[in-house]
Amino acid sequence: MIKKPGSQPEIRKDPLNSRWVIISKERAKRPNAWIRMESKTLDHVCPFCPGNEIETPPEVFSIRKSGTNANEPGWSIRVISNKYPALRIEVEASLITNQMYQKIGGVGAHEVLIETPNHDMDITNMSLEHIANIFWVLRERYEDLKKDHRFKYIMIFKNHGRLAGSSVDHPHIQIIAIPLIPKSVAEELEGARLHYREHKRCIFCDMIDNELNISSRLVMETEHFVTIEPFAARTPYETWILPKIHQSRFEEIRPFERIDLAKILKNTLYAINESLGKPAFNLILHTSPQTDSDFPEYHWHLEIIPKLMNFAGFEMGTGFYINPVPPEEAADVLRDASFK
Amino acid sequence: MIKKPGSQPEIRKDPLNSRWVIISKERAKRPNAWIRMESKTLDHVCPFCPGNEIETPPEVFSIRKSGTNANEPGWSIRVISNKYPALRIEVEASLITNQMYQKIGGVGAHEVLIETPNHDMDITNMSLEHIANIFWVLRERYEDLKKDHRFKYIMIFKNHGRLAGSSVDHPHIQIIAIPLIPKSVAEELEGARLHYREHKRCIFCDMIDNELNISSRLVMETEHFVTIEPFAARTPYETWILPKIHQSRFEEIRPFERIDLAKILKNTLYAINESLGKPAFNLILHTSPQTDSDFPEYHWHLEIIPKLMNFAGFEMGTGFYINPVPPEEAADVLRDASFK
Repeated sequence: MIKKPGSQPEIRKDPLNSRWVIISKERAKRPNAWIRMESKTLDHVCPFCPGNEIETPPEVFSIRKSGTNANEPGWSIRVISNKYPALRIEVEASLITNQMYQKIGGVGAHEVLIETPNHDMDITNMSLEHIANIFWVLRERYEDLKKDHRFKYIMIFKNHGRLAGSSVDHPHIQIIAIPLIPKSVAEELEGARLHYREHKRCIFCDMIDNELNISSRLVMETEHFVTIEPFAARTPYETWILPKIHQSRFEEIRPFERIDLAKILKNTLYAINESLGKPAFNLILHTSPQTDSDFPEYHWHLEIIPKLMNFAGFEMGTGFYINPVPPEEAADVLRDASFK
Repeated sequence: MIKKPGSQPEIRKDPLNSRWVIISKERAKRPNAWIRMESKTLDHVCPFCPGNEIETPPEVFSIRKSGTNANEPGWSIRVISNKYPALRIEVEASLITNQMYQKIGGVGAHEVLIETPNHDMDITNMSLEHIANIFWVLRERYEDLKKDHRFKYIMIFKNHGRLAGSSVDHPHIQIIAIPLIPKSVAEELEGARLHYREHKRCIFCDMIDNELNISSRLVMETEHFVTIEPFAARTPYETWILPKIHQSRFEEIRPFERIDLAKILKNTLYAINESLGKPAFNLILHTSPQTDSDFPEYHWHLEIIPKLMNFAGFEMGTGFYINPVPPEEAADVLRDASFK
């Protein structure tokens, strides 16, 4: 497939701090990509609702009633390619160096998991079985995408609400496979490795022990998982969910743990909704990368960042965060708002 | 001054990636600190307008008509302590280690420079002399604050517009002196140092040469400064202004360069306003830190980040940016929108 020059996505390296940035014009075509756009009510058909399957790229995976066909109603969870992909599967991933600058072709996969046929549903009112199925499908897509060895990391994240960057209201999760390890994950890996070298223990396991012990930042726990407010939370009510036993990769999750993960995620989001008035949020899976070298000292987890303050530029420009809510107070509030 | 336990700000270190976070409850008291707050029109008096000086902490510096008194009208530029400081000058900066966690007292200074008595003015309609005076006052405050050796870095930044995190509309710039070097600056310093070690040249000087040479990302230049879109721009229309000659520290700026800096900043913001419809933005000064070890290979500059997309959580969670506008296109647009 030949494309006009300039229409291919690329991934550029900042020569100063080795940060990678995807430059992808596709993404500007999304509805509501620009917050300064006229905010007229869009009464377009929702492309993610049943009956509108033709509005999306073809599905790559679904759970659907037997007897129904792909790209027709009858599904309960549906995965499609992103219509406005940040990266493309057919791009060449070679590194191009031009004087002081480096870039690589924007190779990658960008998929969307539609969580439910019900436009107005969200995780807090789905059944535990359904949420567990979402994790099962995520894992299936994960295992499939990691077969492509060009991908070094698979990002799974959910932007909930316009303020968190979502351009479609219908509940969905994004999956982006990229040919490099994102900076924050690389830094966490390095921190985990240093801690392991020094103490011969996983830093996340130590953190979980510590938080269960002092309990001031503990929000809730189930048999297999724990929800905490991290010690150095960057933003008010930043919340992490971690497996209690040591698992470096998300795909190590065992079938009987999925329902327990569904339970703690549902209850954690319920507590956030109750105490903060259903805020927009970002939910991000952090897991060990798909590289040749293994990272056994890492520990997969979910990070939830409610969007309560307007920020980005200052924090982005400095890498420095000012958080007005001590995580111990946030944990108090969330504990009080949990299901009793 | 004795405070209740817990009311002191602190700076916490993330054990995983060595990122520091200020935990400061003061900041939650600001008007409009929370984007989810009821957005009623606040018709309070503006604390930064002349006549309302009593609404603010006392001034620490001002340019004012002779014969007028501090904390009265008659000023053209006024610097005050922040009423809701993220950090406090009287806090102890000692490092506290508690098992796996580290924190230091939230010592620091937090000041506000009120740019003009005129509530509705902005940099694009100020005189060049006035803008140059703002830079002069910033430099004065900078020189004064750096005498306190507890401060390792002085952050100077402007949040313009509610979407960029500003809680007061009256034009103002913030100055925060902190007892550590922010992560992004530390990374830039490291990148600059590595480049210098390898090439014996400043990476920013090389970048400027390169950009002036190829000109596709050049927005404008004056005698002493240049405005470019950086090669790996993280967000649409991220824009940098750099001095052409090598200056590692902002305070090295020479008096005759100030008016030229005023000119390029005014014209750059004019081009941004014209082409993007007066967006909210963050403006951040990056400069060499106030530490014992010098950083001669650094090069001070301004970074402007227009707030055009809703984001934060995903980028924050991954350290990975998806930018839908190639910087070469952004430079085209801004060049076209410049004063001719």
